[in-house]
Amino acid sequence: MTNSHHLAKDTADTIVALATPAGSGAIAVIRLSGPQAIAITDKVFRGKDLAKQSSHTVHFGTIRDGETIIDEVLVSLFVAPHSYTKENVVEISTHGSKYIIENLIRLLIRGGARAAKPGEFTLRAFMNGGMDLSQAEAVADLIASNSQASHQVAMQQMRGGFSGELRQLREQLIHFASLIELELDFSEEDVEFANREQLRALVYKINSVLSRLIKSFEQGNVLKNGVPVVIAGKPNVGKSTLLNALLNEERAIVSDIAGTTRDTIEDEISIHGILFRFIDTAGIRHTEDIIEAKGVERTREKMKQAKLIIYLFDPSQSSGEIQHQLDEAASLGMRAVAVMNKTDLVSNQQKQELSSLPLNYISARDKQGIEELKDEILEKVNLHHINTDDVMVTNIRHVEALRHTEEALNRVLAGIEDPVTSDFLAMDIKQALYYLGEITGTVTTDDLLENIFSKFCIGK
Amino acid sequence: MTNSHHLAKDTADTIVALATPAGSGAIAVIRLSGPQAIAITDKVFRGKDLAKQSSHTVHFGTIRDGETIIDEVLVSLFVAPHSYTKENVVEISTHGSKYIIENLIRLLIRGGARAAKPGEFTLRAFMNGGMDLSQAEAVADLIASNSQASHQVAMQQMRGGFSGELRQLREQLIHFASLIELELDFSEEDVEFANREQLRALVYKINSVLSRLIKSFEQGNVLKNGVPVVIAGKPNVGKSTLLNALLNEERAIVSDIAGTTRDTIEDEISIHGILFRFIDTAGIRHTEDIIEAKGVERTREKMKQAKLIIYLFDPSQSSGEIQHQLDEAASLGMRAVAVMNKTDLVSNQQKQELSSLPLNYISARDKQGIEELKDEILEKVNLHHINTDDVMVTNIRHVEALRHTEEALNRVLAGIEDPVTSDFLAMDIKQALYYLGEITGTVTTDDLLENIFSKFCIGK
Repeated sequence: MTNSHHLAKDTADTIVALATPAGSGAIAVIRLSGPQAIAITDKVFRGKDLAKQSSHTVHFGTIRDGETIIDEVLVSLFVAPHSYTKENVVEISTHGSKYIIENLIRLLIRGGARAAKPGEFTLRAFMNGGMDLSQAEAVADLIASNSQASHQVAMQQMRGGFSGELRQLREQLIHFASLIELELDFSEEDVEFANREQLRALVYKINSVLSRLIKSFEQGNVLKNGVPVVIAGKPNVGKSTLLNALLNEERAIVSDIAGTTRDTIEDEISIHGILFRFIDTAGIRHTEDIIEAKGVERTREKMKQAKLIIYLFDPSQSSGEIQHQLDEAASLGMRAVAVMNKTDLVSNQQKQELSSLPLNYISARDKQGIEELKDEILEKVNLHHINTDDVMVTNIRHVEALRHTEEALNRVLAGIEDPVTSDFLAMDIKQALYYLGEITGTVTTDDLLENIFSKFCIGK
Repeated sequence: MTNSHHLAKDTADTIVALATPAGSGAIAVIRLSGPQAIAITDKVFRGKDLAKQSSHTVHFGTIRDGETIIDEVLVSLFVAPHSYTKENVVEISTHGSKYIIENLIRLLIRGGARAAKPGEFTLRAFMNGGMDLSQAEAVADLIASNSQASHQVAMQQMRGGFSGELRQLREQLIHFASLIELELDFSEEDVEFANREQLRALVYKINSVLSRLIKSFEQGNVLKNGVPVVIAGKPNVGKSTLLNALLNEERAIVSDIAGTTRDTIEDEISIHGILFRFIDTAGIRHTEDIIEAKGVERTREKMKQAKLIIYLFDPSQSSGEIQHQLDEAASLGMRAVAVMNKTDLVSNQQKQELSSLPLNYISARDKQGIEELKDEILEKVNLHHINTDDVMVTNIRHVEALRHTEEALNRVLAGIEDPVTSDFLAMDIKQALYYLGEITGTVTTDDLLENIFSKFCIGK
């Protein structure tokens, strides 16, 4: 039930990995953690005796393989327990050359270190009590975050907001669990140490917190992974121009900052801090029959994954045709935004005919009406006023554990109503505690840890 | 002639850039340099008053934009002049999230920093006397180095081996230059302060060093950029299998080290520390007529770029055919290695027929004979016994300056033989000093610096 022997033993050795991205850059950072981190570095570092230096100091020197200089480096020391992993940690800042990185890591491995597995530094931070499991998971979320909202939610979780809320619930339940255990010890005397009314009240209270947290998952998940959106419309109606218009403003800000050019993610757009993920439906870009007969089924399937559909029209379409499509959209029962592109081509007569329709007028090409459209989109998905400082569940593993906790607590409630013996109550409370503990890692299994940390990048 | 006012003024401000590669990784390092580096960081860092901390210390805390936490970070301080740039330098180690990187840099710019231009940190190191120009150039070479040899040559240069040799030559010349200047002051008296015989001896000595350095460029350039090689052979003779066999051994070592997987460079192979760059000739992979009539001209053009041709044969080819191609190869006048692949398919009779030909027998598929082939290749390019600890010129700019120096000194020699007045001698010695100074950056122009540092990566 607790951290396994196997994993605990692993922390006796010293691990090493490149902590910065693999590509070309000015500098690279190679990180070691473990009891021998400083001693192993000392073997190849010339400049100072690192073992005699204080924690949180930086030292210039050379790394040598025999007499061959591998690099001039800066070495930062973090002496246990004052480090990320709570072990001795050394960070070696080298020139960002693949040749140097490879040879330095090889040298450190020859000196007694072992290549770290993905997430192994954070695993050690968790194993050594530096953070709980949900905080460790938030580290990966934080690194992956690509919008203000997902960043804030991950930061909140990493700093222990979620853990704190769970700890309170657990402590109160543990109190009752121990009282009921006491009843079991005195089971022959038929006493009630645990006041059933108070227990019921506590379970109600906990359940209301649980259901708030479970409910937050829908939004939390969308904030973390982006709001799935489909743009529907006939060919040449301006879909990719619209995507670019939405995208360009963000890009402009980003490209101002030299050195941070990001990979082209042409289908992800952050609008006022919320990430929107544009789903590529079969028909949207390549075929001619999106809302038409032939592709309807497939497109509808795709659309069901979306939280929002943007219907894009242009002035070549009649008001009847537009009305027809909007009716069809309504029949899907989904959130939709209707947009008329190429607004400069709309005649006065058309304007009158269209006036009864809920259209947003834009010119994607001239970037007109884009800001208003963004506001409309945010309004529609109802995420713009979310307070990301609230604790929010973003992790499917967490929401499942919360649901299991809720189920166990519902059995506790039923057991109070339709009185069952203390041992049954005790079992259900233990179950609830078990599932809560799974989130923060009070109870873990090797499989669970393996599953969580294998998704981390190496070096974290 | 000296470092320009314009560039000198630039160093009054504080620059910021991402110093680690842009992709996803565990951590990212953002670097600031300049008088306000610590003060600007202090504005957004919460945890300690950085201004009161010592140089070479590391501090944990949060970076905040108002009350919003951007990240939990480690900040390393390097107080002027004890830093790479000799200015105040701050390195902020953040979680490797693009969102965090972008927002942190934006925040620091808002706080008064300016986005650094490519190589601007190293430019400042040069401007502030931390290194000379050839050392600064070696920093870029070091980062780009991808073989043992290119790494060693760059490291030698960065650590001042080349600069030291040039400095000695310059000092001796300056001595004579000042004596000759003295003669000019006393020109009416027709005295010779500078002994012509000693000057001639010195110039001979310097010229012999110059010609050694100029000669080293051919090898140095090849060590830096890789030895260009062409593999020639009929289709299905096993060219790509051979490339893989040569490549795999290196790969195996590399892929042992998790986190350092390098980009696929299937056409660059390091053999015992020397980089070989395989040139893609038009015919080699895609057409059927490499050494055949049709593609000969084009292929020959490509082959001229190569330093070595590997002729690959298989047992389906007659000894006559092989002999014919080797004769043709000899007519090209290039270094060549002849290789018989699929050695297991060579019949005893064939072996006899082929015995007079200088063939290396391998099986690329079974990785037989590969080690021997590597030795043969190294032997042929005559690079295996190069001592990379010797000073070696790898930079076209340097070799050109060295050639100009040599020309000026030859004019000095001519002026001693066919006596010219002191002022002509003085002019030529000054010219020689000018060109020598160009290498180490004693004399520079904005254009030269711009040209050199614009090729650096940002953050270095």
